Parts: sequence; C-alpha cells; structure tokens
Amino acid sequence: MNVGVLLFEDFETLDVFGPVEILGRLKELYSIRFYSFNGGLINNSHGVSIATRPLEEINNGTDIFLIPGGHGVRKEIRNILLVDKIREICSMSTFVLTVCTGSALLAETGLLNGRKATTNKRAFDWVVSRAHSVHWLKKSRWAIDDKYYTSSGVSAGMDMTLGFLSDIHGLEFARQVAYHIEYNWTEDKDNDNFFLQ
Amino acid sequence: MNVGVLLFEDFETLDVFGPVEILGRLKELYSIRFYSFNGGLINNSHGVSIATRPLEEINNGTDIFLIPGGHGVRKEIRNILLVDKIREICSMSTFVLTVCTGSALLAETGLLNGRKATTNKRAFDWVVSRAHSVHWLKKSRWAIDDKYYTSSGVSAGMDMTLGFLSDIHGLEFARQVAYHIEYNWTEDKDNDNFFLQ
Repeated sequence: MNVGVLLFEDFETLDVFGPVEILGRLKELYSIRFYSFNGGLINNSHGVSIATRPLEEINNGTDIFLIPGGHGVRKEIRNILLVDKIREICSMSTFVLTVCTGSALLAETGLLNGRKATTNKRAFDWVVSRAHSVHWLKKSRWAIDDKYYTSSGVSAGMDMTLGFLSDIHGLEFARQVAYHIEYNWTEDKDNDNFFLQ
Repeated sequence: MNVGVLLFEDFETLDVFGPVEILGRLKELYSIRFYSFNGGLINNSHGVSIATRPLEEINNGTDIFLIPGGHGVRKEIRNILLVDKIREICSMSTFVLTVCTGSALLAETGLLNGRKATTNKRAFDWVVSRAHSVHWLKKSRWAIDDKYYTSSGVSAGMDMTLGFLSDIHGLEFARQVAYHIEYNWTEDKDNDNFFLQ
C-alpha cells in the first residue's frame, strides 16, 4: 500500500514518525512518501527539516493518508486551499489516519460529521469547539469509523497504527511488529490513561 | 542545552524522533540540531529525508550527543573516519545518549570499555560480538554509566530520554512530559519486557 504523509510547518514530530516507524519497516507491504501543499523542505520547532513532494501529486487519493497534529494545525485549519485539498484526497483514499489534533484538520473538511472520532486529550475542548457535528470520544486511545482512524495525543498514534495493522493483517502480526521495535503496545483502543473526566 | 543528533544513511526513524519529540518540546531547555559526516540530506528506508549540518561544526563537543541505531550501523561501524569523529565528539560532550544499535557504534570508539551498557535485544549477540570489553546488560530498558546513557531497541529510546529528564529535572518533571505526549512511560530502567533468556 502507498502511504501519503501530510506535513506542514510546525507539525508534531512523533505524530509523524511513530506511525512511519511502524509502517515503514514493513517494506514489502507499505511504501511511504511525504507531502506538503507546495512540496520542498518542511520544518518544525524541534529542529526537524524534512523533504516533501507537492500534494498535487496524489490527486487520485492514496491507500493510506496520514494527517499529523501539532501547533501548525492552529494555522492550517484556516488555510482553505489546504483543507479543500485534504477533503479531495481523503475522499479518494482507502484509509485516512489522523494523530493528535490532526483530527481537527480532518474534521474541518466535514468528512467526520456524524462520525466517531477522538483527538489529543490536552486539546480536546478546542478541537470539539471547531467541529460540533463530530461524535468526539472523550475516553479512547484511538477511534475507528469506517475508513477513518483517529488517535489521541502524540504517542497514541503508534498504538493506533498497530491497531490498524491488527485490523488488516491480524493481531499476531501487529504484536510481532510491536515486539521488534520493543514497544509496549496498548492493544485495547478503549484503554486510555489520559482522558479527562 | 544543545542537543546534537547524529544521522547516517538508513538510521532507524523512531530511534531519532522519539527522543527528539521529548527533548524538542522543551524549547526553553533544549535546542536540537541534526548532523551527519558531510552534512546535507540524509535518507532512510522509511522514505525519510532530513536536512543535516556537517559533523565538523561540533568539534568542541555538545551538551548532549545522540546516536541512533538502524541498519546503517552495520555499514558505519566500519567507517573509521566517522568512528574517530564520534570518539572525539563524545569525549568532549557532557552527555552521550544512544538508542538501539547506536551503542554498537559508540562501543566501536572504545569509550564504553569496562562500562555498563545495553542495546537492542534483537541484535544483542551481534553487538556483543563487536565489543567484548563492554559490560552488556541483557535485561535493561536502558543503562546508565557516568555520562553514557544507552537504551534497548527503538521505542526504549523514549523511556531512556524520559529517564534522562528525570535525572536532570526530577521525576515529576519527566512524568509531566510523558503526560503531555500521552505516553505510557516505563519509568523503571530495569523493567524490560523484551530481554531474551
């Protein structure tokens, strides 16, 4: 499967590279490419500078489209051209995975309206305030609704990606991947130690 | 503190970006820069292409020098110029952190001789075979010996980095960082679910 990862200025480092570690090591199954609206080097406040292709190269959708969160979401959520492009790509993609406040960016497209989703528990109220038509889950490590996988904050993206592998390839397959990266995987998506009452 | 991250072709994604997420978000305390032997874009097999500075820019050492693992280690361990440079930088740095087989690269410099260290449990025998004078710990999420912090495989780098923060800033500080990235931190460095009998 082709995996398209969306980047924008000030994306959250681990939102991207947790899932990328997990899918990227399965070279015979997943091929990862990084995209941004115009392509080129995309930076974040952690000193990371990553080479990307322009988003228009995935006009026909992709197998998996990954949307990270981060402080940059607060700006990009008002970027109508980007939101329109995300809507277009997500509509034509087989699966859409978001990490942290990446779900706010996805929600802005309207594609999550009436669907179950979750997000960073530290930014929960802000995300909800932007998209009242989404059924936001307060206690959920990650949520699944049809082709949309949305995870809680930062590290939860890794648990969600392993959950995705479990759904596609089986639980034992996902456990083996977690074992090889020596990751203590939270297997149950409803096991959320970070929810707020 | 300045954090210098060593990159080389085919580094392991999460070895780098787990610790970078944790230190990078503490912007008032840590400033991260990425280096490679010659500088420029460094790629790995997960499709990541990241901008780096030349290693000679940190001739006088740095506060924290981070060495990741990955398949690239198998090649770089025979790169005498790089190993010499790593020895020089580590000697002059305040702390040296390695993740996964990054400890094999550090061990090649001789600086770990007689010291406690650990590494990826899936590559343990290979690492030990390269450096018999190191006291390799079979069951250890991460190990500390003086200024040298070495972690087990991939994800363990995050636990080690939080352990490092705990040592420098206190346990509650580290717990707060883990909480903000919604990470289920393994706080005890001897709690290793991935060791081999």
